[in-house]
Amino acid sequence: MSWDFQNVAIVGCGAIGLYYGGRLAEAGNDVRFLARSGAAHLANHGLLAKSIHGDFHLNDIRVANNPARIGPVDLVIVAWKTTANHQLGEILSPLLHENTQVLTLQNGLGNCETIANLVGPHRVIGGLCFVGINRESPASIIHSAGGRLRIGEWKSGPPGRAETIAQRFRDARIHASPVPCLAQAQWEKLVWNIPFNGLSITEGGVTTDVLLSSPSIESEIRALMTEVIQAAHAQGIELSFELIESNLQRTHTMESYRTSSMIDFIEGREVEIDPIWRIPLARGKAAGAAMPALEALVARMELCLAARNPQ
Amino acid sequence: MSWDFQNVAIVGCGAIGLYYGGRLAEAGNDVRFLARSGAAHLANHGLLAKSIHGDFHLNDIRVANNPARIGPVDLVIVAWKTTANHQLGEILSPLLHENTQVLTLQNGLGNCETIANLVGPHRVIGGLCFVGINRESPASIIHSAGGRLRIGEWKSGPPGRAETIAQRFRDARIHASPVPCLAQAQWEKLVWNIPFNGLSITEGGVTTDVLLSSPSIESEIRALMTEVIQAAHAQGIELSFELIESNLQRTHTMESYRTSSMIDFIEGREVEIDPIWRIPLARGKAAGAAMPALEALVARMELCLAARNPQ
Repeated sequence: MSWDFQNVAIVGCGAIGLYYGGRLAEAGNDVRFLARSGAAHLANHGLLAKSIHGDFHLNDIRVANNPARIGPVDLVIVAWKTTANHQLGEILSPLLHENTQVLTLQNGLGNCETIANLVGPHRVIGGLCFVGINRESPASIIHSAGGRLRIGEWKSGPPGRAETIAQRFRDARIHASPVPCLAQAQWEKLVWNIPFNGLSITEGGVTTDVLLSSPSIESEIRALMTEVIQAAHAQGIELSFELIESNLQRTHTMESYRTSSMIDFIEGREVEIDPIWRIPLARGKAAGAAMPALEALVARMELCLAARNPQ
Repeated sequence: MSWDFQNVAIVGCGAIGLYYGGRLAEAGNDVRFLARSGAAHLANHGLLAKSIHGDFHLNDIRVANNPARIGPVDLVIVAWKTTANHQLGEILSPLLHENTQVLTLQNGLGNCETIANLVGPHRVIGGLCFVGINRESPASIIHSAGGRLRIGEWKSGPPGRAETIAQRFRDARIHASPVPCLAQAQWEKLVWNIPFNGLSITEGGVTTDVLLSSPSIESEIRALMTEVIQAAHAQGIELSFELIESNLQRTHTMESYRTSSMIDFIEGREVEIDPIWRIPLARGKAAGAAMPALEALVARMELCLAARNPQ
């Protein structure tokens, strides 16, 4: 019999956790949310989601601010920002039974490794979100674009995990699919995130249309995308150079898009610089790829972030 | 020509960073300390070390509170507590050139993995300290016991790294030696740390002699040591069960020893529960070892730590 789950804990009640966890709860699953600051507000008000795929309101939302009050579950979905990952050891421990699996929906690279370190490699599954969601208040979100989820095995684990989770999400109105190679999906997403999220910060907190309106920035975007694809190749991961044109075209149609890192930057929150930029740079260089454009971008990002947070 | 280093950055000016970095500086090496809060104090007062292997005083200590002021070096030694590791991406970046190597002297498991994620696996070297040092003030330490350093390759890197670093430490009055298998050395150290550091907390903040005065606690120590050795075996790491008796005998001779975790606990600082307990537990279980005594210990530690920091 293939693996399946009866209950889920959602670690982190930001926009991603509330949307994907909320969809699972709306579809009738036993979903338990772990919130830090907003637990009481969520418990009192329920979750209100305005979504291009249909609004929903959860009156009775199971939410706790302490993982011991949630207890062991079959599936943990880690949905908070990677900048909180140093608290995962403490958070995950009470949520695990012998066969608990852990799905990370977090940005960039290194999250599977961090979780595997804490819970063992065979429990870990990776997921990638392609979605535009904002949290308006601790209990309300607006889902404005996309929503697709790609789920892939990191190391081997219970057979059929990725397909089972994808199916359960599809039953909950999420366009979810398993991917044969997680690393390929991760690097494919980085082809967009590295240039657009990065330059949206270094150019002063600007939207994607502003970036694409400058021929010199567009050529820097092409150079960065080329390096990211070459870094994937250096690691034996197949990615097509056609991703450059298809990503640029797609971004032109998105008009004035605010990247998540730009929002973090202008709102004074921590930027996920390790998983999206530093770790890909380190992996590419360790595999022998030259990445001068990415190195220069990381250095400029560090200056921008240091200027925002003077020591 | 084998790899060697001309300059060193010490990340973290706690007791370990100041002692091992201080010895290298005393021997004439170019050593640059990265301190967080204590930088000005160290710069003004120099470093005073009272050591069973000979006192020393460094008047001119190179210290900065920002890695950009240190710049790229040949060797970075990570010596701060693992609880600060989420800041490593930011700290390491300005310290690296193309051939910089990174040695971690931190407790437990998972640190090489964390650093490898950020800088690439081939730069990483692991070290284990067997030493009793306390920091009396930001600029003075007391070295009261041991001092031995064991250095091992994590993945392959420039040939001769571990031996070169060990030799340079020996030239600086540190009893340092390379080890053929880092994982074996790490698990061997855990055979002592897991029971003694853990029980020193759960028994209320007590010294090793108090633990050994209770037959029931001594039998729990033996059970924990047995599990740790079996977990190593499950991963293909050789460790002798004779370590149980030799560790118990050695600890009897140490009399009233305060473990570092006990000191952290009673002084209200973060305890390194991930690298010393949770990650070894996860690795052992992932390899198929049953670890009921360690699971129970971790659960009791979590209660002790939660009681200290009520949510």
